[in-house]
Amino acid sequence: MAGNTFGSIFKLTTFGESHGEAIGGVIDGCPSGVKLDLEAIQEELNRRKPGQSAIVTQRKEPDTVAFYSGIFDGITTGTPIGFVIKNANQKSKDYSHIKDSYRPSHADYTYDQKYGIRDYRGGGRSSARETASRVVAGAIAKQILPNISINAYVSGVGNLKLEKPYTELDLSHTEQNIVRCPDPEMAQTMENYIKQIRKEGDTVGGIVSCVISGVPVGLGEPVFDKLHAELGKAMLSINAVKGFEYGSGFEGAQLKGSEHNDLFNNDGTTKTNLSGGIQGGISNGMDIYFNVAFKPVATIMQNQETIDKDGNTVTMQGKGRHDPCVVPRAVPIVESMAALVLVDYWLMNRTIKK
Amino acid sequence: MAGNTFGSIFKLTTFGESHGEAIGGVIDGCPSGVKLDLEAIQEELNRRKPGQSAIVTQRKEPDTVAFYSGIFDGITTGTPIGFVIKNANQKSKDYSHIKDSYRPSHADYTYDQKYGIRDYRGGGRSSARETASRVVAGAIAKQILPNISINAYVSGVGNLKLEKPYTELDLSHTEQNIVRCPDPEMAQTMENYIKQIRKEGDTVGGIVSCVISGVPVGLGEPVFDKLHAELGKAMLSINAVKGFEYGSGFEGAQLKGSEHNDLFNNDGTTKTNLSGGIQGGISNGMDIYFNVAFKPVATIMQNQETIDKDGNTVTMQGKGRHDPCVVPRAVPIVESMAALVLVDYWLMNRTIKK
Amino acid sequence: MAGNTFGSIFKLTTFGESHGEAIGGVIDGCPSGVKLDLEAIQEELNRRKPGQSAIVTQRKEPDTVAFYSGIFDGITTGTPIGFVIKNANQKSKDYSHIKDSYRPSHADYTYDQKYGIRDYRGGGRSSARETASRVVAGAIAKQILPNISINAYVSGVGNLKLEKPYTELDLSHTEQNIVRCPDPEMAQTMENYIKQIRKEGDTVGGIVSCVISGVPVGLGEPVFDKLHAELGKAMLSINAVKGFEYGSGFEGAQLKGSEHNDLFNNDGTTKTNLSGGIQGGISNGMDIYFNVAFKPVATIMQNQETIDKDGNTVTMQGKGRHDPCVVPRAVPIVESMAALVLVDYWLMNRTIKK
Amino acid sequence: MAGNTFGSIFKLTTFGESHGEAIGGVIDGCPSGVKLDLEAIQEELNRRKPGQSAIVTQRKEPDTVAFYSGIFDGITTGTPIGFVIKNANQKSKDYSHIKDSYRPSHADYTYDQKYGIRDYRGGGRSSARETASRVVAGAIAKQILPNISINAYVSGVGNLKLEKPYTELDLSHTEQNIVRCPDPEMAQTMENYIKQIRKEGDTVGGIVSCVISGVPVGLGEPVFDKLHAELGKAMLSINAVKGFEYGSGFEGAQLKGSEHNDLFNNDGTTKTNLSGGIQGGISNGMDIYFNVAFKPVATIMQNQETIDKDGNTVTMQGKGRHDPCVVPRAVPIVESMAALVLVDYWLMNRTIKK
Repeated sequence: MAGNTFGSIFKLTTFGESHGEAIGGVIDGCPSGVKLDLEAIQEELNRRKPGQSAIVTQRKEPDTVAFYSGIFDGITTGTPIGFVIKNANQKSKDYSHIKDSYRPSHADYTYDQKYGIRDYRGGGRSSARETASRVVAGAIAKQILPNISINAYVSGVGNLKLEKPYTELDLSHTEQNIVRCPDPEMAQTMENYIKQIRKEGDTVGGIVSCVISGVPVGLGEPVFDKLHAELGKAMLSINAVKGFEYGSGFEGAQLKGSEHNDLFNNDGTTKTNLSGGIQGGISNGMDIYFNVAFKPVATIMQNQETIDKDGNTVTMQGKGRHDPCVVPRAVPIVESMAALVLVDYWLMNRTIKK
Repeated sequence: MAGNTFGSIFKLTTFGESHGEAIGGVIDGCPSGVKLDLEAIQEELNRRKPGQSAIVTQRKEPDTVAFYSGIFDGITTGTPIGFVIKNANQKSKDYSHIKDSYRPSHADYTYDQKYGIRDYRGGGRSSARETASRVVAGAIAKQILPNISINAYVSGVGNLKLEKPYTELDLSHTEQNIVRCPDPEMAQTMENYIKQIRKEGDTVGGIVSCVISGVPVGLGEPVFDKLHAELGKAMLSINAVKGFEYGSGFEGAQLKGSEHNDLFNNDGTTKTNLSGGIQGGISNGMDIYFNVAFKPVATIMQNQETIDKDGNTVTMQGKGRHDPCVVPRAVPIVESMAALVLVDYWLMNRTIKK
Repeated sequence: MAGNTFGSIFKLTTFGESHGEAIGGVIDGCPSGVKLDLEAIQEELNRRKPGQSAIVTQRKEPDTVAFYSGIFDGITTGTPIGFVIKNANQKSKDYSHIKDSYRPSHADYTYDQKYGIRDYRGGGRSSARETASRVVAGAIAKQILPNISINAYVSGVGNLKLEKPYTELDLSHTEQNIVRCPDPEMAQTMENYIKQIRKEGDTVGGIVSCVISGVPVGLGEPVFDKLHAELGKAMLSINAVKGFEYGSGFEGAQLKGSEHNDLFNNDGTTKTNLSGGIQGGISNGMDIYFNVAFKPVATIMQNQETIDKDGNTVTMQGKGRHDPCVVPRAVPIVESMAALVLVDYWLMNRTIKK
Repeated sequence: MAGNTFGSIFKLTTFGESHGEAIGGVIDGCPSGVKLDLEAIQEELNRRKPGQSAIVTQRKEPDTVAFYSGIFDGITTGTPIGFVIKNANQKSKDYSHIKDSYRPSHADYTYDQKYGIRDYRGGGRSSARETASRVVAGAIAKQILPNISINAYVSGVGNLKLEKPYTELDLSHTEQNIVRCPDPEMAQTMENYIKQIRKEGDTVGGIVSCVISGVPVGLGEPVFDKLHAELGKAMLSINAVKGFEYGSGFEGAQLKGSEHNDLFNNDGTTKTNLSGGIQGGISNGMDIYFNVAFKPVATIMQNQETIDKDGNTVTMQGKGRHDPCVVPRAVPIVESMAALVLVDYWLMNRTIKK
C-alpha cells in the first residue's frame, strides 16, 4: 500500500511536498498521560532545519510546528496528534527549469513514471523536507521511552573516517560543532573539507553512526519484524541512504564464530558486544549500535547533461539551495527514526506474555 | 504486532519450530489464474535444504512441501494457499544440554526473556529452519513475476572476497559448485577454506550478493516503504544477517556527487548505475543489485563458557549438526525474499494511477 | 491498534477534537491523475455541517477545508493529501459543567477509564465533529469511483417509518427538504415531529437507508473482509449507530430459501435482489442497499442525575448546542463511508487476477 | 488486501476449501505462557461440526484439529500456532452438476467473476466449512480472556421468536437441546419446524443472540475500530449473515433520549443498559449483547432454474448435504468471533496508557 505510515502501534503518517502549503503528520497510538515538553520538540526540529550553518543548504525555514489535537493541558490524551509545519521559504522559480526535465540520480524520472504526474518544485514529495515530520514524531517518541538514550553522530565524510569505536568517544561533543562529529579534531577536518566541496559546486556522501543505550531486554518481533530489520528499514527510508549495518556489520562477515561470539556474564550481560545489542532479532539489553551510509546529494551546481520528458538531451545547471553534505542534518533524523522504532516495539512488547 | 507475516498484498504468514511437528505457512493475496509448476517449487526447496554437501549441516530433511489449499487443477484460485513441510530428522537429544542454558550469540537468552518460555530444541522458532517456508513462497512469487530474473550468489567467505562486479561474472556458474560462487576458481578456494573451518570445529561468515534484472519502472512506495527499504528489511530478517547495502552502498558514501550521479540516456536508461536500479525509493528499470552480510553461525563445536537460567557459569560444548558457513544455503533464501518483495510491490503498483 | 485509520489501500487517517484548534486528516493511497472538483468537496461538507436548519444543532461552523498537499494544479499526485478544517465556534464554557462529571450514555466515562484523561470540551475526540473529516475523504472517493451512485436518505425518525422500498422512491427529492427524506409528505411529518421533540428538550433516533448502484461485479475480499462486513463496520463506526442490515436484513431471517433465493437472468443479473447486491461477500452488480439504525442523541436539555469522577451523585442539565435528531446530518456521512469502502475495494480488486 | 486474516494483535489467518485436502490456520500474536486445554478446543469444534443431529447437514466430518507449532509442553510459546483439520467426508461428485453452473444466491457467480476460476466442489472457499478454523482460534481466545463469559444462543427461527430478553433466560439450557435455544418449550417448537422445513426440501433463516459478561472497562479503539464496529464486522463475515444490532439496536432508533439514556450508579455501573455495554465505542463494563440475523441457506432440494457459464438457462436440483437451518451450528461460531475480537482488543488495551 502507499507507504506514508510508519509503525504498528505508535503510528506516524506524514504528508507534504517541499513547496506545497505545509508539511505535517498524524501520530496515532501515542500513549495517553505523557506530559510533553513542547519546547524540546521544537529544539529537535531546530537541530534538523536548513539554513543554520555554512556547510548546509541556505534555505531558511522557521520550521515551527503547530499541534492541532491530541494534547490537552500539555498532556497526551491517547487520541491522534495532528501537527502542521508551514512552508515559508519556497523559491519555486529555482525549479522551473526541471519542470520538464529529469535531474540525474534524483526521483524526478521515477516519480513521473510511477504516478504520471509530479510536483517538480523542490523535488515535491521526494524532497528530504518531509523528514521534518519524522523529527516531530521522533521527538515525542523520545519523551515516552523510559531511560533510553539515543545518540547519533557523523563518523564519515567522503574519505574521512572516524576510526575510533563509540566506546572511545565522548558523545556529548557531538552538538558542539556544525558537523556533529564528536571528535573535535576530525570535526574540523570534515568542516574544511565540506566547505571546499561546496566551493567546487559539488557534494559528498558520509556515514552517520548511532548508539542506543538502556534498551530493555525483549524488544523485537521475530521472524520478519526483527528489531534490527525494522531499524534497517527505518534508516533506509531516509533520503540518500544506501546501506545499513549493525553490530559487527560487514566486518563481522569476515570473522569466525570463535572470534565473534559474545560470551555471557553471570547477570545476562555480555563480555563483548559484536551482536550489537540484538540477538535473534530481539534486544538483549546491551548497546545497540549501527552505521548508516549516505550517498552524496544528487544536485550539484555543475552542469550536467540530462533528458527531458520527451527523451531529448538538455543541459541542466543545478539551481536551488542544496546541502553539500547531508550527514550533519541527518543526525537528528536518524535519532528520530530510531526513537520511532523503539517506542513502537516497546509498546508492542506489552502484548507478548499472558 | 507479532511479526510472522511478510508483505502487504501478497502476504506470507509462517509457522513452525525446528523440532516441532511441522513448519509451513499461508500465502494470502496470491493472484488467481497462475499455472504453478510444483516441481520447480520443490527444486527451490531442494536448493536450500540441509545435508547436501560437505560444507553444510549434515541434518537430513526431505523438506517435501504439501499444499493444502488455494490451488485447483494446478492453477491458483486467489484463495489462501496453505502449505506444510513435515519435520523428519530432529535429533532433539542433541539439544537437551541447552534446555536450561544459553548458547552465546544465539537467541536462547532473548527468547526466554521476551516470552518467558522457549522451545529450546534446535533453537525452536529462532532456527533458520523456518526459512524453508520463505523459499516455498518465494518460489511461487518467482513464477508470478513477469520476466524478472533474480540471481543471488556468494561473493565473500571470511576474508575471501570476489572483487569482480556482477557485470563481469557469468551467473549461470553459480549453481555449478557447492559454494554457489560464480567464479569457479574462487569457489574452489572458498570450498577448501570452509572445510578447514569445519575441521577446526569453527564457523565463518560471508557475503551474499544479488542482482535483479528486468524490473519494471515504478515499483516502490515512498516515503517509508521505499523499494530498497523493504528489500533491506527482508534481507535483515534472515538469520545471521548483519548488514545490507545496495547500489554503490557504503563505498558510495565516500564519493562526490559529480562521481556518483547516473546520467540519462535518451530512452530513460542510465549510462552508469551507482543508484542500483532505485531512485527516490522507486525502481527505474536498471538492474537492482545489493549485498547482504552474514555473521558466522553462533554454534561452534569448541567449548564455550556460558550461563544457565539461574546465572550460574556452565561449560557448553557445541552439539547438533550445524553449518560451518551459511552463505551457500542462504542464496535461495535471499532470492526468495527478493521475489516476495517484488511481487508485493508489483501488485501494489496496480493501484497507483486512476 | 489505535483505530484512527480506515481503509487498506485508500487510507484515511483523521485527527481532531471538537473544541481543539482544528480537525483534519491525511488520505494516503489516493490514485494519481484525478482532476478534483474542490467545490464539490466543500459542498459535501456543507451538507453535513451544523447550524443549517431548525432541526439540527445551532452550532455555527464554517467547516471550510484547506488542502495542504497531494494535489498539484488541481490533480492528485498520488502522494498523501493532508487537509485541515479549523474549528471556529467552540463554546467551551458550555462544557465546564462536565469537566468532572459524566454525561449518561456519552463517552465521557469510558474515555476517562480507558485513557485516564479526556478533553471534555464538546465531547473531545468522541464528538461527531470528527465526521467532517470523513466527509472530505468520502467526497474525494466519490470523484474517483467510476459511474457508481451512492444515495442515502432518512427512512425513519422515531416511530415514523417510510414503508416504501427504495425502488418506489424518487431519490432526487432527498436534498429538497431539511429532513432528507425523499417522500415529501413523510418528510413534513418528520420535520414537525423533530421540532416538537426539540421543544421538549429531548432527542429521538432514526434510520438512514442507502442505495448504491452501478457497482462493478467482484468487489469484496472474503472471508473476513467481505464487502458487506466492511460496510457494516464503516457504518457502525459512525457516532450513535446501533445496527446495520443489508439486503433482506433482519426480515430475511424469517424467510425460507425458496422465498429468498435470487434467480438469475441469462446475463448474470438477478430477477430479485434480496441478496442486496452482495453474494459470498462479493458484489454481483445488482444494487447494494442497507439500513443504519441511529439511537437518540444522548445529550438532552432535561435534567439528569449522574455521577462525578469520585462517584458522587450530581444533577446535570444539558447545555451546549445539540441535534434533536442526527439522521438528517448523518446522510452525507453514510454516503462518505460507503464511498470510502467502495473505492478501497475497487482499488484492491486490481490485484486479484494474474 | 485479500481478507483472510482477522485481528491486529491476536491475528488469525485461515486457509482451506470445502473439498480440498485440509483446512486450517495460523494464529500469530497469541500471548506466551498460556496453559492450553486441548480437549476443550476439540469440544468447541465438536459443537460446530456437521452430522450431529437431524436438523443439520448430514455430512460426517471428524473435524479433528492437529497443532503443528507454537505450543510446547502444552503451553503457548508466543510463536505462531499452526493448525490443520483434514477434510474427510467430501462427496465431490455431489457437486459435479455445478461445475459450470451457478447456484442462485450462492457465491458461485461472484467468485467466478472475481477470480476467473473457482473450486466449485462444496462451494470451495466460500463454504461455511472454513468457519471450523475460526472455532479453533476462538476456543484458544476464550482460554486467554480473564473471567469473561460469552454465551450465544438461538433466539429466532423463521417466524418463531424468543421474546424474552436474555436477562430472563437461563443460558445454561442452551446446550441441552439440538436447536441451542435456552427456552426448552420454544426449542421444541423450533426443532419441529426445522424438521418440517427439511422434509419440504427447503431451508429457513434465523437469529443468533449473544451475551458477553465480565468485560473489563476500556476495550475499543475509536474512531474507526470501535468495539461494536469490530464485533459487527466479525459477525457479518460469517456465512449467511445479513444483519447485526447491539444494545437497543434497531428498536432503539425509535426511542427518545429521555427513554434511552442509561443513568449511572455511584460505582460507574448503569441502572439500565440500552447501550449494550459499549459507549463511544468503548466497553463500560456492563453486559454486551447483540443479535445476528442469518438468511436461509441458499441450497434447497427443490428444483431451481439458473444459468451456466455461458448464460444458458439450466435446471438445477439441489444436491449435497446441507443444513435446513444454520443457526444451531452458528452459535459456537458467533462465540468464537466474539472471543477473537475481545482478546484482540484486550491485548491492544495494554498499549494505551503511558
